[in-house]
Amino acid sequence: MKQLDKITPRDVDFSQWYTDTVLNAKLASYGPVKGTIIFRPYGYAIWELMQKYLDAKFKELGVENVYFPLLIPQSLFQKEKDHIEGFSPEIATVTRVGDTPLAEPLFIRPTSEVLMANFFKNEVKSYRDLPLIFNQWTNVMRWEKTTRPFLRTSEFLWQEGHTVHSDRTEASDLTLKILDTYTEFAQNALLLPVIPGKKTEKEKFAGADSTYTIESLMHDGQALQCGTSHYFADNFSKPYEIKFQNKEGKLEHAYSTSWGVSTRLIGAIIMTHSDDNGLVLPSMVSPIQVRLIQIKETDEVIKVTEEIRNLLKNKYRVDIDKTDKSFGFKISEAEIKGIPLRIEVGPRDLENNQVTISRRDTREKIQVNLNEVETIVDQMIKDYDANLYAKALKNREDRTSKASSIEEYKNILGQNQGFVLVPFCGEIACEEDVKKQTSTNSRCIPFEQDNKTEKCFNCNKETTLKVYFARAY
Amino acid sequence: MKQLDKITPRDVDFSQWYTDTVLNAKLASYGPVKGTIIFRPYGYAIWELMQKYLDAKFKELGVENVYFPLLIPQSLFQKEKDHIEGFSPEIATVTRVGDTPLAEPLFIRPTSEVLMANFFKNEVKSYRDLPLIFNQWTNVMRWEKTTRPFLRTSEFLWQEGHTVHSDRTEASDLTLKILDTYTEFAQNALLLPVIPGKKTEKEKFAGADSTYTIESLMHDGQALQCGTSHYFADNFSKPYEIKFQNKEGKLEHAYSTSWGVSTRLIGAIIMTHSDDNGLVLPSMVSPIQVRLIQIKETDEVIKVTEEIRNLLKNKYRVDIDKTDKSFGFKISEAEIKGIPLRIEVGPRDLENNQVTISRRDTREKIQVNLNEVETIVDQMIKDYDANLYAKALKNREDRTSKASSIEEYKNILGQNQGFVLVPFCGEIACEEDVKKQTSTNSRCIPFEQDNKTEKCFNCNKETTLKVYFARAY
Repeated sequence: MKQLDKITPRDVDFSQWYTDTVLNAKLASYGPVKGTIIFRPYGYAIWELMQKYLDAKFKELGVENVYFPLLIPQSLFQKEKDHIEGFSPEIATVTRVGDTPLAEPLFIRPTSEVLMANFFKNEVKSYRDLPLIFNQWTNVMRWEKTTRPFLRTSEFLWQEGHTVHSDRTEASDLTLKILDTYTEFAQNALLLPVIPGKKTEKEKFAGADSTYTIESLMHDGQALQCGTSHYFADNFSKPYEIKFQNKEGKLEHAYSTSWGVSTRLIGAIIMTHSDDNGLVLPSMVSPIQVRLIQIKETDEVIKVTEEIRNLLKNKYRVDIDKTDKSFGFKISEAEIKGIPLRIEVGPRDLENNQVTISRRDTREKIQVNLNEVETIVDQMIKDYDANLYAKALKNREDRTSKASSIEEYKNILGQNQGFVLVPFCGEIACEEDVKKQTSTNSRCIPFEQDNKTEKCFNCNKETTLKVYFARAY
Repeated sequence: MKQLDKITPRDVDFSQWYTDTVLNAKLASYGPVKGTIIFRPYGYAIWELMQKYLDAKFKELGVENVYFPLLIPQSLFQKEKDHIEGFSPEIATVTRVGDTPLAEPLFIRPTSEVLMANFFKNEVKSYRDLPLIFNQWTNVMRWEKTTRPFLRTSEFLWQEGHTVHSDRTEASDLTLKILDTYTEFAQNALLLPVIPGKKTEKEKFAGADSTYTIESLMHDGQALQCGTSHYFADNFSKPYEIKFQNKEGKLEHAYSTSWGVSTRLIGAIIMTHSDDNGLVLPSMVSPIQVRLIQIKETDEVIKVTEEIRNLLKNKYRVDIDKTDKSFGFKISEAEIKGIPLRIEVGPRDLENNQVTISRRDTREKIQVNLNEVETIVDQMIKDYDANLYAKALKNREDRTSKASSIEEYKNILGQNQGFVLVPFCGEIACEEDVKKQTSTNSRCIPFEQDNKTEKCFNCNKETTLKVYFARAY
């Protein structure tokens, strides 16, 4: 039997701890092509749970799922100037089939705006045809220099929403409605406290009029972008000629949006909630929420274990560890896999009509009377989730500060890390200068603003804007 | 408002009828790269329903979902000789990223046996690690010369199962268990009568020891392969070195399988059930099962329509056509989209406490008392599905015949088409000769065999084998 590998302590080497946690929990393995990963059953099951949650929310908003092709002709891609500039160095390109060279190179989609735009162009004739609110769950490819499982991989899985509207405000409102959906999902399902806001000019999506984002803070104090929603105005409908006849009978360019979250969210929950004993998973996306472990397989123990499983199975994803591994190994494995609750059933406890339930997060153990199992499990799952969120929020609050000068900002970066709120002019050149000095970017312009005029922390220009900067993944 | 396009009658030009039906029902559009299609919302919703049905069946069998990378290094692909020979002319190949050439060309997966084998090699140490029963829902690419929406496209969506076992019989049994699952799915959900059987040596999958298949007959008398299940024995585990320590402590090569169904099943249901008025969909995979249409929007009509929707919505996928299209247009559209039942609600019927329900397949209309709607809908959906299956079965039976010589076979091909059961030696050279003469291949060796010795219909060699041949998509 393979022994579980040691996990490097989180505070000793966060990056190694992350890799150890991913590999030990059997979430992923490395693929044969550099920067690619294999989603193993346990890792993929988390993604399936995320999909299920979000897809239901999307359907409530009237989103329709579609599937657009993987390959984009080079010529089609090149119509929107910023878009091609932003993506071209990362694009994997098909140039031959078998031994036969292709007449035109084909790009593996890094994202599908141009394919959607090309479809909308042919589809949309009148305001009656609008809006179209599409989404696809799919793979995309962006060649990355430095990669890390889930967080940054050459190929990743995501959902990409693409919409087109007859009305500017309707389009722009939709991007915010989607951002709300992402915020709700991140906070309630993934237990990630996030800061919603707008990206600066420098950080917005290639081709967007404005980009909205949710940003969260990892345990080590680095930020992670968890989802983005882009309002394009008519930036795509002009080069791709998406026109419709409006109610007044005049031809008008349509307004479009796109938005997405990806498998990097699996990375986000690991780096936010997990600990030195391995994975800690929010119950909503935990493939197994309750695991039953038998201390000794007597007839009575087997019978009660089955009864508890049957009691809980309509409400929770529950399993029994029936492997022939040792009791200690089973406990470690349940911890490494981040299973929220573990119920241990043994002959001695049963003499008193009891079982032992333990929480993965606090490792607290309690003895519970058999007829109280369901009630206690309900309560413990609630407490467990609440604690995960509270801990993550506390970490973020402890690591959020303000700075009014670049020196102060550098000083904070050197110590505590975390989000730093600064007065910032918002200009691209100034942000590039900050990046040159600190290797960090802005994360977002939070929606809540105090509107006080101050001096930009880097260039001293007067500004009312407060912006979060941070070191980020 | 865009008028619905005319559908070419099925008996005038089957191929044009098919395309008209697909485009009119808005199942798909053509993608910008030759041979690719866009799955529009209505087409993708059918695929989602197929996924949901099959995925639940797989999970009952203990199948675990995974996701493996899109790209396969050329060198890794080349280890299994038959496999690379079978696929290499169709493989789209990535040779550069941005402007930078890659050191090694990367293949877009036409199927994932080699990636799985490479993973299994590293993963499997002992018989205790086995079996591994994986599946992925994904896109694959095989460059095709002649393409047709859903039936044959350069990129398609499918599920591919890949398993590895310590026991030869367990592996071989699994391929048959999966074939049973496919048969049940095809017959009960898609209402496709299928013939399960084994592929001949010539027709088996590149690299397989044996390939099992389900074959169905389209309305025009051509056959369609609807799903395949492959037993590899140790054909992949030898070149890819998948070895495990067996119970006796000896190293042994593992036994593997793979199996898949694809979006071509959407083509199968269209070509089996649909008619000159457009799509006809089996209720199980129909995105809308019951559509309510209001003849005139009086308060009473609106109220009753809502009531019926609420009555049915927990059991059926039901909607109300609330567009401002004409009544006649709404009827045509419901037909073109193949919605099984249509309920028309109008003021005159309501005076008698009635609504009109009509079936898409027979176009039969009946007046139903309001308090009987649910019972009648239940019965009509059952009858509708039963009729679809019975019609498809009758078409197959009418078009199934026997031949004992190649002349007789050619004669049947010229007339009626359909499945032709022939005594066949099973040899590759002989089947190649049949193909040269008729452009047809064998479809399958059915499991039911009479075991009588006869002469091969082409080469006259003695054989007990009876095999189905047919012209096929």
